[in-house]
Amino acid sequence: MDGNQEAEGQKADVIVLGGGLSGLSAAKLLKESGLTVVVLEARDRVGGRTYTVTGSKFNYVDLGGAYIGPTQNCILRLARELGVKTYMVNETEHLVHYTKGKAHPFRGPFPPAWNLLVYLDYNNLWRTLDSLGRQIPAEAPWTCSHAEEWDNMTMRELIDKICWTRTAKDFARLFVNVNVTSEPHEVSVLWFLWYVKQCGGTRRIFSTSNGGQERKFVGGSGQISERIAAQLRGSVMLNQPVVRVSQNAEGVSVETLTGDKYKGGYIISAIPPGLTMNIHYEPGLPPIRNQLIQRVPMGSIIKCMMYYKRSFWKEKGYCGTMMIEDEDSPISMTLDDTKPDGSCPCIMGFILARKARELIHLTKEERKQRICQIYSKVLGTTDALQPLHYEEKDWCGEQYSGGCYAAYFPPGTYRQFSRALREPFGRLFFAGTETATKWSGYMDGAVQAGERAAREVLHAMGRISSLEIWKEDEEDQDVPSKPITASFLEKWLPSVPAFVSMATICTVFISAFGIALLKPSIQVRLSR
Amino acid sequence: MDGNQEAEGQKADVIVLGGGLSGLSAAKLLKESGLTVVVLEARDRVGGRTYTVTGSKFNYVDLGGAYIGPTQNCILRLARELGVKTYMVNETEHLVHYTKGKAHPFRGPFPPAWNLLVYLDYNNLWRTLDSLGRQIPAEAPWTCSHAEEWDNMTMRELIDKICWTRTAKDFARLFVNVNVTSEPHEVSVLWFLWYVKQCGGTRRIFSTSNGGQERKFVGGSGQISERIAAQLRGSVMLNQPVVRVSQNAEGVSVETLTGDKYKGGYIISAIPPGLTMNIHYEPGLPPIRNQLIQRVPMGSIIKCMMYYKRSFWKEKGYCGTMMIEDEDSPISMTLDDTKPDGSCPCIMGFILARKARELIHLTKEERKQRICQIYSKVLGTTDALQPLHYEEKDWCGEQYSGGCYAAYFPPGTYRQFSRALREPFGRLFFAGTETATKWSGYMDGAVQAGERAAREVLHAMGRISSLEIWKEDEEDQDVPSKPITASFLEKWLPSVPAFVSMATICTVFISAFGIALLKPSIQVRLSR
Repeated sequence: MDGNQEAEGQKADVIVLGGGLSGLSAAKLLKESGLTVVVLEARDRVGGRTYTVTGSKFNYVDLGGAYIGPTQNCILRLARELGVKTYMVNETEHLVHYTKGKAHPFRGPFPPAWNLLVYLDYNNLWRTLDSLGRQIPAEAPWTCSHAEEWDNMTMRELIDKICWTRTAKDFARLFVNVNVTSEPHEVSVLWFLWYVKQCGGTRRIFSTSNGGQERKFVGGSGQISERIAAQLRGSVMLNQPVVRVSQNAEGVSVETLTGDKYKGGYIISAIPPGLTMNIHYEPGLPPIRNQLIQRVPMGSIIKCMMYYKRSFWKEKGYCGTMMIEDEDSPISMTLDDTKPDGSCPCIMGFILARKARELIHLTKEERKQRICQIYSKVLGTTDALQPLHYEEKDWCGEQYSGGCYAAYFPPGTYRQFSRALREPFGRLFFAGTETATKWSGYMDGAVQAGERAAREVLHAMGRISSLEIWKEDEEDQDVPSKPITASFLEKWLPSVPAFVSMATICTVFISAFGIALLKPSIQVRLSR
Repeated sequence: MDGNQEAEGQKADVIVLGGGLSGLSAAKLLKESGLTVVVLEARDRVGGRTYTVTGSKFNYVDLGGAYIGPTQNCILRLARELGVKTYMVNETEHLVHYTKGKAHPFRGPFPPAWNLLVYLDYNNLWRTLDSLGRQIPAEAPWTCSHAEEWDNMTMRELIDKICWTRTAKDFARLFVNVNVTSEPHEVSVLWFLWYVKQCGGTRRIFSTSNGGQERKFVGGSGQISERIAAQLRGSVMLNQPVVRVSQNAEGVSVETLTGDKYKGGYIISAIPPGLTMNIHYEPGLPPIRNQLIQRVPMGSIIKCMMYYKRSFWKEKGYCGTMMIEDEDSPISMTLDDTKPDGSCPCIMGFILARKARELIHLTKEERKQRICQIYSKVLGTTDALQPLHYEEKDWCGEQYSGGCYAAYFPPGTYRQFSRALREPFGRLFFAGTETATKWSGYMDGAVQAGERAAREVLHAMGRISSLEIWKEDEEDQDVPSKPITASFLEKWLPSVPAFVSMATICTVFISAFGIALLKPSIQVRLSR
């Protein structure tokens, strides 16, 4: 900045707030459209909720967002363009489900059930979540005809209504914990159903193969942001937390904590909605947005990587995926995090929601000990007690993320406030993965939202038509998706109460039929 | 500020963030203790969520917090000291309960019921809320033995469990709406029970006479803040939204949006917890506080004052209190807001929670029309359609309040996060009515919290002992409280299910007894 600019403030056509994936995607598209842009990032690094660090013990590690999979065509396209390759997360051997103190190896997205009632209950749970989700328009969830009814309930209530067995209820809680880093009793049914739906349903969101966790980026997800930032060169300003956003008919101005000023025509906020509370607005936000941003807390998670000498779990026939139901276990879900070349054997595990809030008070060493102990129990070997190294990242304590993976909606807020999520306010437009309509909460949603917000600005400038704002990527050639369809049984198997009713009716009929058959002989006996 | 100070920043022993009642109470006590203090207020006025404006049409009006009553001894003491007098809200004539399109005049805190089952249901509702509340320690709600169970439920769930009649359920919703400007499905049971308990129970919180709405201040509640600010003179800085709070072993420093800097030994934050998201912290907040402040949204309310030529409602035998159950009515609750000398006849009404969010999209004139129409229906006179003047205040759109009356806790947050509400972070201490343990959410709680935080700082400076931090005021002589005790019937009347069981058992017994009595004659008849 020269002296003249310092007085007046740096100028750009568009000022982007937040140098995460979404803000950088927006800036990239705008720059390619011939506009000048400046990206203001609060931290001393780009990437936001993606964060790749390097170290001698582990080469590199994704401490934040890491997983991508089929149908995530925005992030896949962007990565390809930037020369970042993907690799498959290991799922060759068995997954393992640990419940009631026992480990059950299995294959497929969800643990199976050997008890008929539990089997029916699981099947009905996934089927119901998906069929309710289909009734919610991804682009306008507030218009769903059940919006009020579903938004006024928590997922705990819905789970209690759908599930009849304790086993299914417990696993449903883990499903919520893993997908949205919050508790079933904390989230709106309308929001959670929408969330799962816009990821492609219960199987797509939860699966490794053919699902949201199929792949990772070779070298880490942080490279995407770093490479965009390199392209944008001087336009990305680090250590610039935004404190003021002002706008009038002529344009916008932005002030940062360091006292720097930026002027432009438009602003794209690519900050999680709740963290935009960090900014003072002139004029003030409209009432609904002013209250929305107080109602979208970020989830709670500590991401934990345990490094070992060997991938001893593979030797035991386990791929490294563990689903752990045990109140004493810090970790609820793991995946193999060994590098694609087999180096740095590692188990990645999530401390989620209520557990993150409880265990944050321990020391790092205490968490490490407890994690090794549960891995040892689940995998049935003391090898798990001998890690070479431990890395963890507590996202709850991050001032400029607020938590991870994303924001959630408590009951009663999604219907009346979600409309304001990406509704522009004057010259202020909204990106960030929370404003996406597909894979919102993921890296893919971040890119979709960033590019959409960029095109909204291009439209506001009269450069493109309103029809060009929303674009859908074609299916990625290298990461194709297999369709997810329900089998005949999955579609038509009864729920537990339907099964019990049917069984009762059958019993009555068979008994009646039996009595009718026996009647002559009974009569004969009685008449003797 | 002279040039020297400008460079270094203004200095004070304690920097108070927020010039509402709580911050000013803290500053007053600190100044009286011989310390230097500076109060930084974001707005161009003091008072925060209390706001008295004057005008020719209405003389003066409280657009924000206004009501005080017995047991609110902190605010009563402070008002007396500052020479601000109270007057009784009119409750001479009948209150009116409007439900299912009909107006029912009544007396007492709650509308009566003429249907026996509804009567039992109401009685059991208040009794149960109070008895559950008694199990929650006001100072440490997270230690309650039911904390987890109750925090994981919404008030909608609890109401559905306690109440058997639609009438009681609907009124329970209004009770939640009126007390905490949010919906039953939005709030944690643990938090709501605590809230009602620390106000003295269901009757104390909801009553006009002998309750939270018994009185108002002659001249308006804003005078309290203005008079303290006058005492503090040059120490209250307006138009100074805080953007940065830094601290180290030596002291603290605070920066405002205008670039001004303040240095001191301690900070008291007297800002609603959710609005402290507005500040950048160095070092960053601990994880639990970092997430707490994303989880405490402010309630939704539009306060509406309708001015008339005459107090026509009194002529019809109504005091002006209306409890309105009608989904089409903007207003759920009213009180007479005529001045104590009988001038400026006025009905004050609240647009609450879901309704505030819906009706904020109307024009002021549309809201005025709809309000007059419902007043006309409830009071049964077209006089209500002829207002002289209308004043309203939408608190949802206030950048530096976020909403009113206060913050609420969604399900699942109170148990794990409430401990951090007033837990000091280094040299940073917390006031604000949300951190109070008695009448939290009210002006009284604001004063309690402000003075307690001030004494915490005095203790940290070694000036008082830890035993002197918490103080309880003696009962105010001019505004004495009458004890609230349950009558024999209220204590021992059965709930609806208990009554139905008893009735069934009685019926069976009486029938059996009757049959036994009749048996000889039956036998006689049969034997004939």
